[in-house]
Amino acid sequence: MVNYIVTLQCTDMPGIVRATSVAIVAIGGNILENDQFTDPVTGEFCMRTRFETEADDIGAVRSRLERDLATFSPKLGVRLEDERRRALVMVSTFDHCLAELLYRHEQGELPLDIAAIVSNHPDCAALAERYGIPFHEIPVTANTKVDAEIELRSLLDSFNVDFIVLARYMQVLSPELCSDFSGRIVNIHHSFLPGFKGARPYHQAYERGVKLIGATAHFVTSDLDEGPIIDQDVVRVSHARLPKDLISLGRDVERSVLARAVKLVAEDRVALVGNRTVIFSQ
Amino acid sequence: MVNYIVTLQCTDMPGIVRATSVAIVAIGGNILENDQFTDPVTGEFCMRTRFETEADDIGAVRSRLERDLATFSPKLGVRLEDERRRALVMVSTFDHCLAELLYRHEQGELPLDIAAIVSNHPDCAALAERYGIPFHEIPVTANTKVDAEIELRSLLDSFNVDFIVLARYMQVLSPELCSDFSGRIVNIHHSFLPGFKGARPYHQAYERGVKLIGATAHFVTSDLDEGPIIDQDVVRVSHARLPKDLISLGRDVERSVLARAVKLVAEDRVALVGNRTVIFSQ
Amino acid sequence: MVNYIVTLQCTDMPGIVRATSVAIVAIGGNILENDQFTDPVTGEFCMRTRFETEADDIGAVRSRLERDLATFSPKLGVRLEDERRRALVMVSTFDHCLAELLYRHEQGELPLDIAAIVSNHPDCAALAERYGIPFHEIPVTANTKVDAEIELRSLLDSFNVDFIVLARYMQVLSPELCSDFSGRIVNIHHSFLPGFKGARPYHQAYERGVKLIGATAHFVTSDLDEGPIIDQDVVRVSHARLPKDLISLGRDVERSVLARAVKLVAEDRVALVGNRTVIFSQ
Amino acid sequence: MVNYIVTLQCTDMPGIVRATSVAIVAIGGNILENDQFTDPVTGEFCMRTRFETEADDIGAVRSRLERDLATFSPKLGVRLEDERRRALVMVSTFDHCLAELLYRHEQGELPLDIAAIVSNHPDCAALAERYGIPFHEIPVTANTKVDAEIELRSLLDSFNVDFIVLARYMQVLSPELCSDFSGRIVNIHHSFLPGFKGARPYHQAYERGVKLIGATAHFVTSDLDEGPIIDQDVVRVSHARLPKDLISLGRDVERSVLARAVKLVAEDRVALVGNRTVIFSQ
Repeated sequence: MVNYIVTLQCTDMPGIVRATSVAIVAIGGNILENDQFTDPVTGEFCMRTRFETEADDIGAVRSRLERDLATFSPKLGVRLEDERRRALVMVSTFDHCLAELLYRHEQGELPLDIAAIVSNHPDCAALAERYGIPFHEIPVTANTKVDAEIELRSLLDSFNVDFIVLARYMQVLSPELCSDFSGRIVNIHHSFLPGFKGARPYHQAYERGVKLIGATAHFVTSDLDEGPIIDQDVVRVSHARLPKDLISLGRDVERSVLARAVKLVAEDRVALVGNRTVIFSQ
Repeated sequence: MVNYIVTLQCTDMPGIVRATSVAIVAIGGNILENDQFTDPVTGEFCMRTRFETEADDIGAVRSRLERDLATFSPKLGVRLEDERRRALVMVSTFDHCLAELLYRHEQGELPLDIAAIVSNHPDCAALAERYGIPFHEIPVTANTKVDAEIELRSLLDSFNVDFIVLARYMQVLSPELCSDFSGRIVNIHHSFLPGFKGARPYHQAYERGVKLIGATAHFVTSDLDEGPIIDQDVVRVSHARLPKDLISLGRDVERSVLARAVKLVAEDRVALVGNRTVIFSQ
Repeated sequence: MVNYIVTLQCTDMPGIVRATSVAIVAIGGNILENDQFTDPVTGEFCMRTRFETEADDIGAVRSRLERDLATFSPKLGVRLEDERRRALVMVSTFDHCLAELLYRHEQGELPLDIAAIVSNHPDCAALAERYGIPFHEIPVTANTKVDAEIELRSLLDSFNVDFIVLARYMQVLSPELCSDFSGRIVNIHHSFLPGFKGARPYHQAYERGVKLIGATAHFVTSDLDEGPIIDQDVVRVSHARLPKDLISLGRDVERSVLARAVKLVAEDRVALVGNRTVIFSQ
Repeated sequence: MVNYIVTLQCTDMPGIVRATSVAIVAIGGNILENDQFTDPVTGEFCMRTRFETEADDIGAVRSRLERDLATFSPKLGVRLEDERRRALVMVSTFDHCLAELLYRHEQGELPLDIAAIVSNHPDCAALAERYGIPFHEIPVTANTKVDAEIELRSLLDSFNVDFIVLARYMQVLSPELCSDFSGRIVNIHHSFLPGFKGARPYHQAYERGVKLIGATAHFVTSDLDEGPIIDQDVVRVSHARLPKDLISLGRDVERSVLARAVKLVAEDRVALVGNRTVIFSQ
């Protein structure tokens, strides 16, 4: 038996679930997990189905689904659950998010392959080596920005990467890259968006005297800090906490929120409807 | 157009979703919301589907679903969304849970009819009257326990009640009533089960020095405090909080947890698999 | 025995705690509760002490404290715990925050006197009457704004009000009133500040696709939504929640956050250091 | 300038704060942080004060405090803030709590010295080595239990250990050791006490169908799982989570709760009143 994960997105109309379930039965499939959502504002229908079957020819499975669903012209994703998504993780000098991802990956909690780690600084090389993941330093200066991204693109190709994780990567990616990898770059913002955008959010939070600080994992678009939100969380802070304490408390939120978001993306549980995400997680 | 809520439960096997969606399309239905879960331990399949259609004959809709799903011998529920569930609320002297339910009901947040309020004390009569809900006092003593329950049964019949809410009702119902209304009596226990069972849980919590207190909404079975859990929540407490403070903080948790649980039951979002609940809520 | 609440604020220097505790012992006092905080950024020292004594002459107690603490030129507050703060609550048409305050007040959870309720609409008159609190309608239009505030000032005087609670009052108070009642007007903002300022924050939250929504209780300054934050909280929301659902979920957060903030202010547990609050609550 | 942390515990009576603050001023001290609590049930007074002074002779400081406070016969603790507590961490095979402590320690978030790591298994040796902490394997069998504890005692002596952290150590310590290190052994229990005691709590939680799972850090007494609670936390779980998922989610709660508890103990922020803890943390 093999397991498939099928994702489907199209304009809602009667018959989509019937067509899908007819196709799955025809393939000899048994549904293990199914989530669907119709967005009442846009009328967009999204579905994620996981099923088991003896039909191990993914090409045939995909063809059958494409044929039976052709009427609805869906955006269709078909993959074997065991063929895990491949991620490239980017980091600068703060290593807490990277360390968390590597630790959880080693524990078997993140069902994905970490193809490589890329950084504009050498600091995290030892951490990468400890976990046996290829580490590539691509320094970035005002002058080398274009070349650096060419080098990055080359790595994305050679490592056959499905999505990018910015684990506190402090450089801005070009609009072209953001566009080419639309819905496939996950960033952790060290603030409860739309709270404090831009630089030094924990210092802003301190100045404002907030009683909760947070972090936000979101897809990257060319519009900085405005991409679709995947997950967020907060932690309570008191008046006695200084900016350095907020940074320290924030680290904990950042690493757990990013780890949750990466898991959701790796399992194809995140659909995009406009600038909003639909999260399929029971 | 009318909306239907269909719930379905049976042993999992291939074809259930197909059969259901075929039937819904045949009825001219369009699925608005669909949730399903297959319990990997017991192999039980549960589903809740909400769809719209022009077919306003509920008898015909039910027949079609029964026929198409007959192979699976499901426990099947079919109702019009607008025909709201009818609840009878029982209370003793503490009125905070009752007040919360009445307030939310008035705000339009609880899609159910509160058919009547029953109490073993007269204290909440004024509150019931304020909201225009029939109030029945049924005193209970050691000697009148049997008669009291006969009177209660008579009210349940005459008010055509779907389910009972124990909103801090301090009397124990008979095993027969618990059994006859299995999965249809919701209780709020003033503790984070299985933390502190029995009497005076907040005093027990104080003695034990816990840092979080909670409340649990659960279905009632004849096995006290052991019924299937619907929802739970907690609130942080410090060493400075005395038992009376815990009671006060606990009230807030009790009323919000009970209100959430009642809403879930009123919308048929709670399925039972053994002693565990499956909650269909996106 | 009587209980006093003493609050004290001045520039930090050695000897303040000694001077205070010497004075309290001289008065025959025994400290029941003591909280203090030195702000490391501004060097401001804040303290709140609750003590019991047989000295029931508040004038004498105040004099002794003033004399012993004169060196430090503190802002000093001395009150009998039983002489409760007097609040005036302002509301427009949404009654959930007012209902919550009145209910908790009746339950004995808010140690303050609700002197009167003022509204620019008649809608909440019945609710006020039910709890036996004087209700004053002061309509506000562009033309009557000045007169309306004169009428409000007159009520604040005649009811001898210590602080004002804006329980979803939808009118903006004049800069003069904000200034005269600086640190004495509590507002509930229906958003997790600094998230969504201005109008229709829940609709903004929906558009942005946030995964948590919140509410913020803060002191009012003439700079709208920028006053010192007293308390905040959030609740998790899914993609399936529409703006009307966010409004409904937000109501719960608003009423609990406002109730907590009002209790803190009523018990003199909130000190102001610049635009930040110090919360004395164990 | 040096910083002192003074902790004090005695029966409450008027004059303690005065005596302490008089002594601190006499030493040339300026209070940086002060927390106190009088337990209303037992009448026990607890205080923690952090102050700076030029008096760097700790013997003289301690003498002065002892003399001025002699009337109250307090349990008195005096230490230089820079002389950090020394902890010995014990672990079996699950390494997540140990990994978290070592990571936070390296990040500068845990102000203590990790003197050594002791395990009844060799599994964590590599992790200890990576962080440069001495690792001692002390195997424990039914026959070697007494000898193993003798070896442990010898390590506690030679490493001059202030307190022990059981970071998922799966052996039971002898009543004698629990008693000798009363209030100085911190354990993480993988359940929300008093929820599920004993073995396999996550499997118990699954069977019971709870909607929240948690973890509890507590001091160890000879009465298993009944020692004073230092901190607790919970995380929400759905019906779809299997025991293995609960274990995985529980790991996150365990490591954050234990890390918080160890920090509190390392900073002398935990006082014991009977079987309850008083936590001094603003």
